[in-house]
Amino acid sequence: MDAFDRLESVIADRIGGDPGQSYVARLHARGTAKIAQKVGEEAVECVIAACADDRAGLIGEAADLMFHLTLLLRTQGITLDDVRTELARRDGVSGIAEKAARPKE
Amino acid sequence: MDAFDRLESVIADRIGGDPGQSYVARLHARGTAKIAQKVGEEAVECVIAACADDRAGLIGEAADLMFHLTLLLRTQGITLDDVRTELARRDGVSGIAEKAARPKE
Amino acid sequence: MDAFDRLESVIADRIGGDPGQSYVARLHARGTAKIAQKVGEEAVECVIAACADDRAGLIGEAADLMFHLTLLLRTQGITLDDVRTELARRDGVSGIAEKAARPKE
Amino acid sequence: MDAFDRLESVIADRIGGDPGQSYVARLHARGTAKIAQKVGEEAVECVIAACADDRAGLIGEAADLMFHLTLLLRTQGITLDDVRTELARRDGVSGIAEKAARPKE
Repeated sequence: MDAFDRLESVIADRIGGDPGQSYVARLHARGTAKIAQKVGEEAVECVIAACADDRAGLIGEAADLMFHLTLLLRTQGITLDDVRTELARRDGVSGIAEKAARPKE
Repeated sequence: MDAFDRLESVIADRIGGDPGQSYVARLHARGTAKIAQKVGEEAVECVIAACADDRAGLIGEAADLMFHLTLLLRTQGITLDDVRTELARRDGVSGIAEKAARPKE
Repeated sequence: MDAFDRLESVIADRIGGDPGQSYVARLHARGTAKIAQKVGEEAVECVIAACADDRAGLIGEAADLMFHLTLLLRTQGITLDDVRTELARRDGVSGIAEKAARPKE
Repeated sequence: MDAFDRLESVIADRIGGDPGQSYVARLHARGTAKIAQKVGEEAVECVIAACADDRAGLIGEAADLMFHLTLLLRTQGITLDDVRTELARRDGVSGIAEKAARPKE
């Protein structure tokens, strides 16, 4: 199973669990604004790791960001597949746009 | 093909292209700090869309964030698979930790 | 006049002005979320300038951040003096806390 | 004394102090990137408080942001007066620009 989908599935399993045992349940219980705050914070940590050329650090921060983003999306009823669909839609649009912009032979 | 991998592949194709024709090439030419800045900005837009319960907006901002994050990772030689590996590693660790923490029957 | 207060007064003067002539009026017309987004963006630019040890850049970004923060506060009816009062209050509290925490002679 | 200047002076007093007794000394000891991270985080909290129309919360977050920004500036040898000078310079430029842009009678 794709690790992003596995992450989403783990989050789905734990979200309604015991806040005393699960970080996901605990964060979810604190509400959307708190999860959104974590997304902002992890993005700032990605910025800092990238600016420091800290490759290993950036991998860790990107994983943290994916985790909190996936959780945030879920609070709004959004799945990773919804984001994939949006990216595929743009890819198609951009493919067409590029063709149109291509200089005529 | 998974849309995140397709995104990564499109970025890889365009990164060395003509800045006059490609947003990816243009942003890449401006350097890591500028791409990191975009990651920070898109995360802030996710925060705002989530706080406004703007579901459609959040899908779009999450797609923007994935786009710029994937590009940022690439400037440090990091692939989405590196992030997947990190998530899988944690998942294993967390699985073990949970088992250990589970109250004895 | 203190330059922060002068900034606040210029913002107050322009906020209801013609969006075609004033950046303040234009941004204000776009609403709180858009101004908040600018505060987030300018903070990210401060982060990047600081991480790059770009002293001149950081002065400029800090000025941008003060500008947008002052405008954001105003949209919620908050003045710089309200923030000063909060800082003075904490300073007092912290002074007391420090005295209490000081090891007994 | 202006509360922002008082804040700057308290920070200057504590920055070289005992990390075990002072938050300022502790954060300073962790370096510029960590302080920059706090600036980013506090800005995200301002964004969230503003989007929630949480007036009291925004005053507190703005005070936190001023605190960490002032500390960050200091790590780069920048004072609040440097930021004030930059704002005054822009104010002058903007005054001139506005006059030039004013439609002729």
